[in-house]
Amino acid sequence: MRVGVPVGHAAEQVDLWLDAELRGVPSHGLLRLERLAERIGKGLADPKAIGLHEWRGAGFLAVDGRKGLGPIVANAALEQVTARARETGIAVAAIANSQHIGMLAWYAERVARGGQVAIVLSTSEALVHPWGGRKALLGTNPISIGIPTGEPDPFVMDTATSIVSMGEIHDRAHRREPIPSDWALDENGSPTTDAEAAKRGAIGPFGQAKGYALGLAFELLVASLAGAALGPDVHGTLDAEYLCNKGDIFIVADRVQTAGLSTYLQLIRNAEPAEGFASVLVPGERGRALRAERLKSGVPIADPVWARLLALASDDVPKRQGAST
Amino acid sequence: MRVGVPVGHAAEQVDLWLDAELRGVPSHGLLRLERLAERIGKGLADPKAIGLHEWRGAGFLAVDGRKGLGPIVANAALEQVTARARETGIAVAAIANSQHIGMLAWYAERVARGGQVAIVLSTSEALVHPWGGRKALLGTNPISIGIPTGEPDPFVMDTATSIVSMGEIHDRAHRREPIPSDWALDENGSPTTDAEAAKRGAIGPFGQAKGYALGLAFELLVASLAGAALGPDVHGTLDAEYLCNKGDIFIVADRVQTAGLSTYLQLIRNAEPAEGFASVLVPGERGRALRAERLKSGVPIADPVWARLLALASDDVPKRQGAST
Repeated sequence: MRVGVPVGHAAEQVDLWLDAELRGVPSHGLLRLERLAERIGKGLADPKAIGLHEWRGAGFLAVDGRKGLGPIVANAALEQVTARARETGIAVAAIANSQHIGMLAWYAERVARGGQVAIVLSTSEALVHPWGGRKALLGTNPISIGIPTGEPDPFVMDTATSIVSMGEIHDRAHRREPIPSDWALDENGSPTTDAEAAKRGAIGPFGQAKGYALGLAFELLVASLAGAALGPDVHGTLDAEYLCNKGDIFIVADRVQTAGLSTYLQLIRNAEPAEGFASVLVPGERGRALRAERLKSGVPIADPVWARLLALASDDVPKRQGAST
Repeated sequence: MRVGVPVGHAAEQVDLWLDAELRGVPSHGLLRLERLAERIGKGLADPKAIGLHEWRGAGFLAVDGRKGLGPIVANAALEQVTARARETGIAVAAIANSQHIGMLAWYAERVARGGQVAIVLSTSEALVHPWGGRKALLGTNPISIGIPTGEPDPFVMDTATSIVSMGEIHDRAHRREPIPSDWALDENGSPTTDAEAAKRGAIGPFGQAKGYALGLAFELLVASLAGAALGPDVHGTLDAEYLCNKGDIFIVADRVQTAGLSTYLQLIRNAEPAEGFASVLVPGERGRALRAERLKSGVPIADPVWARLLALASDDVPKRQGAST
């Protein structure tokens, strides 16, 4: 709010970050606040914008995010396409020119709780190398899918198409721990177990050629529908120098049958675990359990992040420039 | 045609199989003919059906396949949803009760050549274990994505969410070769390098927990939208005993921007390969090159498959029962 974010927008943006913290995904949590405040200060992000909506056909909402905050622009679009999908059966929002939208599961879960199916895609700066390549040419290009199941909580999976997040590699570097040899390449494109070297290099796609194929398909799909930039041309979710030109896609489908889904999920939860595993997990449920626990016990925030939050809460905050009021 | 398939339907079905053979995917090729003929003979498949269409909203086509052949039902549905997506921007066909639809790339490429984006999903019998589990509880649940790129050929990726196909494991067993230790579990749920043991066991998801999460999401998504069966309840793509109750989803989106896609793909094709790689590949292009080569030089067909085709072409063919005319 000190950098000009309206209270409702601030609450929504912080809810997204806190949800990531609660679910144990601090890379998408409060550490993002400082950079966003900096971007707002420089006029690269507009804290008041909700995006310009253009319906290209009854089911296709094209959104120019007008430099707005990721969750503000996305939720305004989702409100439209969830309502529209109740009429048409399916609708898509294709968003360009908004800030980082954070943890995709936050959106997919919201849609699924409303009784609809969601497929959410987003692109990012090039951090991932093609399978068989040496340099980062793809975003981490996550996907989240939310599905109502007839159970109190929907099914929500959320995964990047990289083998790990760059945040995880930074964390290992910070702790001076090595990384597994299949995680990343160094700046020369050779496999490395040195997290510092990996930070200057490229992360591997998950699942080798198959994960690469998916990550590339998502990169092209988001660019095709949202008019987003591609590969090394993508900027603005990690820096405070460029306009944010990645894209986000929300496909919402209605008319869901939930018959049998809960029974099937129970079959999976009750399946005999393999050696070395305590149980068979349904994706998303570990994060949800952690969330419930942390809502009671609190969220551990890393000291440097907490120190930055306190500094940002003080008067020493960059002034906004050039953004509309 | 000897089992009552109309000539047009037979041509379409065989084109699908031949395309798989041409692209080097014989598991989805002509070896499927015998089982389908058997299913038609038993009345489990109806070679004349094209499916019953019900629009649930302007963008959602629900299809009861009426036991029709996979590509016949799918193409009839695709004709509708591709036309509809030109008006609404996005449309989906959700198909239940048709036969195996074969190689998904065949459909995605067709849509992409028409200038639209396609996301194709299909489920199958449970052959894949959950990550951390011992028994097969998920289908191989492939995804194919087709995207126009401004180049003469569209981008088309197609991958199962299993680490390999069951066909590949059968092939290793046939050749009495071992399999890598991360491919499959034996019937007790322990890792095995014995292809025969793997045939009675379960294939692993690709990319460990992440591929499992995707495969499970696709299983639930297809069931939700198409009303398909789930996990161990799925039958009818491999056997000649049960009605086929898997599902297929075709999401078609319009209004594509192709700006920059070709430049980006060229960047990837020209990227310096990592050690041990001759070049960086764009998914789908190796199969397409093989197809071009085989269209000139011919397709190698395995002797047992060829022998069965000759037998089926003789008079000794099961008579059809119980299917509508």
